[in-house]
Amino acid sequence: MIQIAVMGHGVVGSGVTEILLNHTESIAKKVKEEIYIKKVLDLREFPDSPIADRFTKDFNEIVSDDEISVVVEVMGGLKPAYDFVKQCLESGKSVVTSNKELVAAKGAELLAIAEEKNVNFLFEASVGGAIPIIRPLHQCLAANDIEKINGILNGTTNFILNKMINDNMSFEDALKLAQDKGYAERNPAADIEGHDACRKICILASLVYGTHVYPESVHTEGITKVSLKDVEYARAWGGAVKLIASARKNGDKQEIITAPMFVSSDCQLSNVDGVYNELLVRGDSSGTIGFYGRGAGKLPTASAVVADVMDCVLHKDERRNIMWKDGSGENVLPYEGYVNAMYVLAEADDTDAALAKANEIFGECEKITRPGADAREAAFITGELSYSDFTAKCAEFAKYAEVQSTIRIAKI
Amino acid sequence: MIQIAVMGHGVVGSGVTEILLNHTESIAKKVKEEIYIKKVLDLREFPDSPIADRFTKDFNEIVSDDEISVVVEVMGGLKPAYDFVKQCLESGKSVVTSNKELVAAKGAELLAIAEEKNVNFLFEASVGGAIPIIRPLHQCLAANDIEKINGILNGTTNFILNKMINDNMSFEDALKLAQDKGYAERNPAADIEGHDACRKICILASLVYGTHVYPESVHTEGITKVSLKDVEYARAWGGAVKLIASARKNGDKQEIITAPMFVSSDCQLSNVDGVYNELLVRGDSSGTIGFYGRGAGKLPTASAVVADVMDCVLHKDERRNIMWKDGSGENVLPYEGYVNAMYVLAEADDTDAALAKANEIFGECEKITRPGADAREAAFITGELSYSDFTAKCAEFAKYAEVQSTIRIAKI
Repeated sequence: MIQIAVMGHGVVGSGVTEILLNHTESIAKKVKEEIYIKKVLDLREFPDSPIADRFTKDFNEIVSDDEISVVVEVMGGLKPAYDFVKQCLESGKSVVTSNKELVAAKGAELLAIAEEKNVNFLFEASVGGAIPIIRPLHQCLAANDIEKINGILNGTTNFILNKMINDNMSFEDALKLAQDKGYAERNPAADIEGHDACRKICILASLVYGTHVYPESVHTEGITKVSLKDVEYARAWGGAVKLIASARKNGDKQEIITAPMFVSSDCQLSNVDGVYNELLVRGDSSGTIGFYGRGAGKLPTASAVVADVMDCVLHKDERRNIMWKDGSGENVLPYEGYVNAMYVLAEADDTDAALAKANEIFGECEKITRPGADAREAAFITGELSYSDFTAKCAEFAKYAEVQSTIRIAKI
Repeated sequence: MIQIAVMGHGVVGSGVTEILLNHTESIAKKVKEEIYIKKVLDLREFPDSPIADRFTKDFNEIVSDDEISVVVEVMGGLKPAYDFVKQCLESGKSVVTSNKELVAAKGAELLAIAEEKNVNFLFEASVGGAIPIIRPLHQCLAANDIEKINGILNGTTNFILNKMINDNMSFEDALKLAQDKGYAERNPAADIEGHDACRKICILASLVYGTHVYPESVHTEGITKVSLKDVEYARAWGGAVKLIASARKNGDKQEIITAPMFVSSDCQLSNVDGVYNELLVRGDSSGTIGFYGRGAGKLPTASAVVADVMDCVLHKDERRNIMWKDGSGENVLPYEGYVNAMYVLAEADDTDAALAKANEIFGECEKITRPGADAREAAFITGELSYSDFTAKCAEFAKYAEVQSTIRIAKI
């Protein structure tokens, strides 16, 4: 019998205990040992839980219990999760977490402690919820050089954008609907400002390229400035606005960014439904591989956590060799140098003159029009150019027209 | 250093040596040992190979070499692959194969030998080429009851159907084009008759449900009878004809089938491009998860083989616990009992009378029409009914109209 503890009895934590209690036998059959929840850590009381007697408010009861060999951390946030996880690893316990903030901020350090103590630190659930991503990237695509990763990794913003795209709903109304449905937090900043997606691409880039990428090194734009006009111009252009988290190899460094982008309708990412996530990975041998599924939610995320716990049981002697070294951001190229075509929406009294100026300044641009456009709107797509080049030219163009929006065209 | 042998230097085998030779260092870094190809078995000569001196025509040089601990089998077919693989496992060598025919026919036996000898028998490349499927199903979704699996698992037939759908090409012309492009064999029976897709769903069902499913137990229909009219009616109905390999839980048994089906355009499987594969898996906790990518081809398949070799190196002491027990087909429910709605295309002098008869015999049917239909055509979709019920009613209906095609409506 393997004894474990679960720290946190919120949405994901209660899902973890639910799966472990309801599937005890089938799980025991697969890992050849029973997995027993000895302790659940939460400051709240849950008298109706079938294992109410195993709840504790005292972390020391977990970390000092030598019978507990695997600890699940599903509290979220850095405090006190980081201290607790670190102490558990240092005490020689394997840790499984769904906490992307923790892995993105402290992954390299925690992996190094896990290696030193010869225990596992697993975090499949931290990216893409139930979708198998970490393990396939690490194992199945191990023989590949990963050229690029592009994904829709935040279901909340994808839901909001889809409501704007399909139902012509404003950003504010779509956000309110997402909150009413429980897809968005009351404080939605981490989602809509792009930080959640950024953390996930940081974890994936760290895993694939071997050097920790901290969120602070990654240029991140949210979707709060995306307007219904932008959504319509994306459609007119032949695609959709999506929040894309992207990492690509450039020599021995990487280009990593999280930002709303125009995605062509030819690309699978343009069609990802509501709260779903999808990741496209391009390896030099494998070609493009796609992973799709629910990126969040109680049972989907919990099922990924439990699978990691099972893997800890199967790998208790020979630990998983997931590992990356610490980094200081030197491997992330400055975003000003990333090359994209750009969408520009501007207003001018004389739109023909503005478009002529655009062609003069940016080089040949593709004019786009939308049904019901205001007479003052001029929208176009530039050729490919670096972001610094674009901003310089945009400043020049702003002398002739009032720039309303600029959005990158995704290269997926 | 780990010494390996590669049996077969065809498309996949040459890809395996290419990846191992070109990525020696990065692979060694990941598995902490160099992987050295000591022998390549092929009856042909390859004097231009950079490792031409390591080729042999004699299997005994591999099986009797104690320094070789991992053997890659990429010969295909059962003879002599089965004997060779069995002997290698019995000699205590781990085996990695891309040979779906072998795994579908002999998986349970070979896995039992591997367990007895405490070595690995891995076959990620046998289903879905480069797409990680076996490992995610086995590990990442381990905490789930898998309710159903539906996939497009054969790229050749998907290419042919897409040419019929998008370019109005006849089956024969599309097959010829697939052959010219090297997507289809000169003897295309295994693909177009559905056997290849059937073998793959057998492997997945064995893995997920724990009992070997032999291809003989699975009702299999190919795409040779799919006509351009069927393709057009599928479009008119709101979907596309696809060759679907499907396994679903029904109590403690399974419904497993490979057949062309109408797939609604709401479903991702309706849009899978050309030679790509896609698998949708529904777990009780995870919800639906999708896997997408190139299901065949030299480097994609070889990259999955090499990843398995790397896994053998990492798991040389503690073997992978992939395992299923032998079966005699008793867990596969008879296909006559599977319940689907059905598409029927018939010809009659009086189509209104034929449709009225259809409503009488099958219960309320949905009439479908296609542009440019012959005046004698009557097409409709029945409600859901068992296949045996359908065939009985179809025999009755055939008294009033000439039945041209019947195709299942997929339940994905």
